[in-house]
Amino acid sequence: MAYELYYWPGIQGRGEFVRLALEDAGADYEDIARKPESEGGGAAAIMDFLERTDIIRPSFAAPFLKDGNILIGQTANILLYLGPRLGLAPADEVKRLWVHQIQLTIADFVGEAHDTHHPISGELYYEEQKTEARRRSGNFRKERIPKYFAWFEHILARNPEGPGVLAGNTVTYADLSLFQLVEGLNYAFPRRMSQVLAGAPRVAFLHHAVAQRPGLRAYLESPRRIPFNEQGIFRHYPELDE
Amino acid sequence: MAYELYYWPGIQGRGEFVRLALEDAGADYEDIARKPESEGGGAAAIMDFLERTDIIRPSFAAPFLKDGNILIGQTANILLYLGPRLGLAPADEVKRLWVHQIQLTIADFVGEAHDTHHPISGELYYEEQKTEARRRSGNFRKERIPKYFAWFEHILARNPEGPGVLAGNTVTYADLSLFQLVEGLNYAFPRRMSQVLAGAPRVAFLHHAVAQRPGLRAYLESPRRIPFNEQGIFRHYPELDE
Repeated sequence: MAYELYYWPGIQGRGEFVRLALEDAGADYEDIARKPESEGGGAAAIMDFLERTDIIRPSFAAPFLKDGNILIGQTANILLYLGPRLGLAPADEVKRLWVHQIQLTIADFVGEAHDTHHPISGELYYEEQKTEARRRSGNFRKERIPKYFAWFEHILARNPEGPGVLAGNTVTYADLSLFQLVEGLNYAFPRRMSQVLAGAPRVAFLHHAVAQRPGLRAYLESPRRIPFNEQGIFRHYPELDE
Repeated sequence: MAYELYYWPGIQGRGEFVRLALEDAGADYEDIARKPESEGGGAAAIMDFLERTDIIRPSFAAPFLKDGNILIGQTANILLYLGPRLGLAPADEVKRLWVHQIQLTIADFVGEAHDTHHPISGELYYEEQKTEARRRSGNFRKERIPKYFAWFEHILARNPEGPGVLAGNTVTYADLSLFQLVEGLNYAFPRRMSQVLAGAPRVAFLHHAVAQRPGLRAYLESPRRIPFNEQGIFRHYPELDE
């Protein structure tokens, strides 16, 4: 039976980290909310699910994944579940926890990237918190991006098993997620990122190499890949990249 | 061999979620940074570890746990590892992922609680971002606290196996973490929380019941439990609770 992914249909957002794993592996899945409402899709499909009172293990927020009777939420947790099933996680427990640790650190970074344009509240418009956004972005660009990228460079350099991947000797979902993180930051902070990637050659190489993987390349060129936009996590507001 | 926990010695912080699991289970562990510097402790022990270049799987930040040769970072990931070893996680894979999903949602909430007093940057003092903190806290109190607590109430009400616990029919590390979340919010936002807990009886009951567990009770009354203070995640600034 096909996996069913539930995520907002108009943005890449956090759901994209799951989409990339499913697409890279060529998995059979349905992106439920991207189907027409008449076929049970649309944002309404997610709202209905979040509001139903008969679900034993309801997610606090999208994305969530349905695999038959199994329902799993939280992006990193979905990838923890899918990783071994899609051939994108090591077999060994300790290595699998390390991949998950990298994923959780990426998730922290993604949360910080989101808060650059929403430092006060996700329920207010960007325009209502522009002053604060400018201040938070300055710190994010100067302090946070370099700190995280230095860590990614270090763990890529120190991986004893394989050059070019974060953990073990094959690509894992964490590599796909780091690719997506770089994609998003390149979109949101192009000026800053051109400097940062020049000083992070291992991350830049990984970003390039992941994009060439056959499954991902086909996906990225397809209409299934939603373009970045100013509704998602990574938004391009030039005033935040100055 | 004893577990070795590395976390900042002067605060409960994120490390406390790990301490509670270890203490509840009566596990043999050392809280490394709380030892004197002359015995290899102090904050220096953490800094040294984070800066060493010979660690294959370095954490981005504390807490991290050492179990012999195994090194694991990210709070929720440490608990994922410890859960089954301490008898604080279900055996079944799907249930274990559900407990982890709850933990990750608590982690998101904890991150939001931190950002109420640091909405611009963790590298600036609170006093340098007081205006923004006031604005962010208003939204946190009015929108975010009730939304999360409604979810906790729902999942407690819907757990088909056991009343009084979040998942399965015995206490898991997620229950201990929800206890700690309530403790922290009660300290930081006493005014708001007295209203919220009145409307969340299942969470209030869990909070009370967890505190009575023998291992935890002994810990909470001991000097090992660091009092809340204005260096940690949960800080009491009355102006943010108005």
